[in-house]
Amino acid sequence: MTAEIITIGDELLIGQVVNTNASYIARELNAAGVEVHRTTTVGDNRKAIMAAFRAAWKQHDVVIVTGGLGPTHDDISKDAVAKFFRKKLVLHKPTLRLVRERFAKLGVAKMPEMNVVQAMVPEGFKVLRNDRGTAPGLLYQDGGKTFIIVAGVPAEMEFVMTDGVLPYLRRTYKKRLETIIHRTLMTSGIGESMLAEKIGDPSYFLVKGTTLAFLPRSGNVRLRISTSATTRTAAEREIDRVEAILREKAGKYIFGADDETLGFHVVRLLTEQHKTVATAESCTGGLLAARITEIPGSSAVFLGSVVAYHNDVKQSALGVKASTLERHGAVSEETAIEMAEGALANMRTDFALSTTGIAGPDGGTPEKPVGTIWIALAERGAKTVTKKLSLDFGRLTNRERTANAALEMLRKRLLV
Amino acid sequence: MTAEIITIGDELLIGQVVNTNASYIARELNAAGVEVHRTTTVGDNRKAIMAAFRAAWKQHDVVIVTGGLGPTHDDISKDAVAKFFRKKLVLHKPTLRLVRERFAKLGVAKMPEMNVVQAMVPEGFKVLRNDRGTAPGLLYQDGGKTFIIVAGVPAEMEFVMTDGVLPYLRRTYKKRLETIIHRTLMTSGIGESMLAEKIGDPSYFLVKGTTLAFLPRSGNVRLRISTSATTRTAAEREIDRVEAILREKAGKYIFGADDETLGFHVVRLLTEQHKTVATAESCTGGLLAARITEIPGSSAVFLGSVVAYHNDVKQSALGVKASTLERHGAVSEETAIEMAEGALANMRTDFALSTTGIAGPDGGTPEKPVGTIWIALAERGAKTVTKKLSLDFGRLTNRERTANAALEMLRKRLLV
Repeated sequence: MTAEIITIGDELLIGQVVNTNASYIARELNAAGVEVHRTTTVGDNRKAIMAAFRAAWKQHDVVIVTGGLGPTHDDISKDAVAKFFRKKLVLHKPTLRLVRERFAKLGVAKMPEMNVVQAMVPEGFKVLRNDRGTAPGLLYQDGGKTFIIVAGVPAEMEFVMTDGVLPYLRRTYKKRLETIIHRTLMTSGIGESMLAEKIGDPSYFLVKGTTLAFLPRSGNVRLRISTSATTRTAAEREIDRVEAILREKAGKYIFGADDETLGFHVVRLLTEQHKTVATAESCTGGLLAARITEIPGSSAVFLGSVVAYHNDVKQSALGVKASTLERHGAVSEETAIEMAEGALANMRTDFALSTTGIAGPDGGTPEKPVGTIWIALAERGAKTVTKKLSLDFGRLTNRERTANAALEMLRKRLLV
Repeated sequence: MTAEIITIGDELLIGQVVNTNASYIARELNAAGVEVHRTTTVGDNRKAIMAAFRAAWKQHDVVIVTGGLGPTHDDISKDAVAKFFRKKLVLHKPTLRLVRERFAKLGVAKMPEMNVVQAMVPEGFKVLRNDRGTAPGLLYQDGGKTFIIVAGVPAEMEFVMTDGVLPYLRRTYKKRLETIIHRTLMTSGIGESMLAEKIGDPSYFLVKGTTLAFLPRSGNVRLRISTSATTRTAAEREIDRVEAILREKAGKYIFGADDETLGFHVVRLLTEQHKTVATAESCTGGLLAARITEIPGSSAVFLGSVVAYHNDVKQSALGVKASTLERHGAVSEETAIEMAEGALANMRTDFALSTTGIAGPDGGTPEKPVGTIWIALAERGAKTVTKKLSLDFGRLTNRERTANAALEMLRKRLLV
């Protein structure tokens, strides 16, 4: 079972938009047991689209296309699909009804007429509902192969994939789908080639169907083991076997598994330990709270945050002393400590994290240049601990790294 | 001048990594006047890599490849390049010296021997230095066409692109490069098809070489005008002409140009009007504050936020009444109003925005399903106004859209 993903849109070819659709679809297909062999991106150009369809349909069992299904003049994908399969476009009444209902629900009295095109479907195609937009997914089967096109807006694409495409593939190709699984071990404190030396030639321990990849990223190297088998149990046994070998050879550099975010780990650990956290943020400006609250279920462990950008708010909402601000400044270990302890006391949590610093681009001084950051972790019944960072990556990355460092401080504490 | 980008790596085909390299390279080539016609992603598989090289090299003037240049067993791209062009790999001594120096600088006494392979180069290829890693870029020219391969680690790829590839292309193809420019107009408060109706059939005002695209994202639609011309002046004149037409037809929905965010506009308007704002967030969990504070200079107008996830914090930090929470619930117009007014009073700002709602995936009830959101805007000396949203996009997008809608409420108020 092999697949190709085709993403359509000039915005991708000029680099205006990062192609997150391709990675989402790849991940989901992979989890369903379909191997993605190629991803192709072309612009809103009929000739390029048709060429991509031809190459993909010839070589793969499943072709999934996204983009260019909107109602405006630059959306030409559906016409290209109809032409490629030599089908007429016909009105699909249930879709037209759904599109009309959607506009009614949005409070639009009269649906713009151009949306009728959203209900035109190539003859013989199956229609996959899209509850998040007006363009349904379209699916065609021929000679054991399946061609699918879905809207390019990520939320709509995700809905149609989850609701229509994946269940259809699982049902239709039940007997041909393999179980493909991956496990990623996160390492730190060692470079790629030194890690490879420790591990040695992988051909001594890898069997056919199992691969090992080295993935360096911002100072860390991830090791990804992949395998496919007819059953999940067999696949997991094989992954376990390889992981054991890697841990034997380089275990002291491995600190975690898979691509879970720090926020995820913090929420999981707090949940397991029945503990709560609050944050008090200056330079991260709400980002730290946002990194925690993006995790479903975080409301059980995260009580709140005070984003105290102005010194008055640091005093009134967190109880930072005027004398501390005056003597040490807002960006200081002392202020970070009082912020964290204020949040802990006011929100009555088990832990509180604070951040204060100069994210940039302005506001630096010779003593405290841009990128000077203090983080504090307060804990009920324990001494508050602090950490200083000196960053140099620009405002957005400085904020990201500060939020990461704060989450990492709490994660380490929760592991003790 | 057309180009194809080929990105190599299993991590891209299983969706483990989002392909940011493709968008970076596309953006840079575009800015240099090279049109990217296709992007292809294949795995670490010799056959697939060779097929991608063949197709791209036949059709385009410039082929840029990233990935698979590391020293480990899963890096096979350089061998594939040598085989594709029928070249031997020979030792490039200056590169070997740089690689050795790199390890010495990192404090590694003895460079792992496998890194010698990093200095092996296909005969006749130009070597492009990589100061951020051990794999240099490699460039080959034949019959007016150029083939380039660079490392896949983003920081290394960016270095080699900026330092070597782009200057080379600008120099070599000076006479053939066009000026390609884009301008994106940001709209809000109108859907894609209604906006298209207002604008009418673009073929009446677009000339050859100029395109208009509709790009919906999180509730806003962006309009992108693109054009290419022999000089920058001519290109800009054409973009100005089309922008004037769009503003005439739909000016009241256009709030900015290029990728300026709503947060940017809110900060700009507040600064101009010497006003301040605070936020009180429940379902957005800090995201609303983060969207404001990511803007440099926001500290002059943004005083702080209370992220009140837990009801206790809504009461203690924002003064929401227990009776309100009991009678109407945390997700209600009444609670939203008290949150905003509490933030306004406590932080003594001119405006305060609040959000409360059920972001999902859990927590919905029949009366208040997931996606039920209330937003309030409090203003000193004026009546608090509210807005209800009914969203259905999944937790992350629900949060994004709520933050957008709140910012849009304030932006509109500031424009009056």
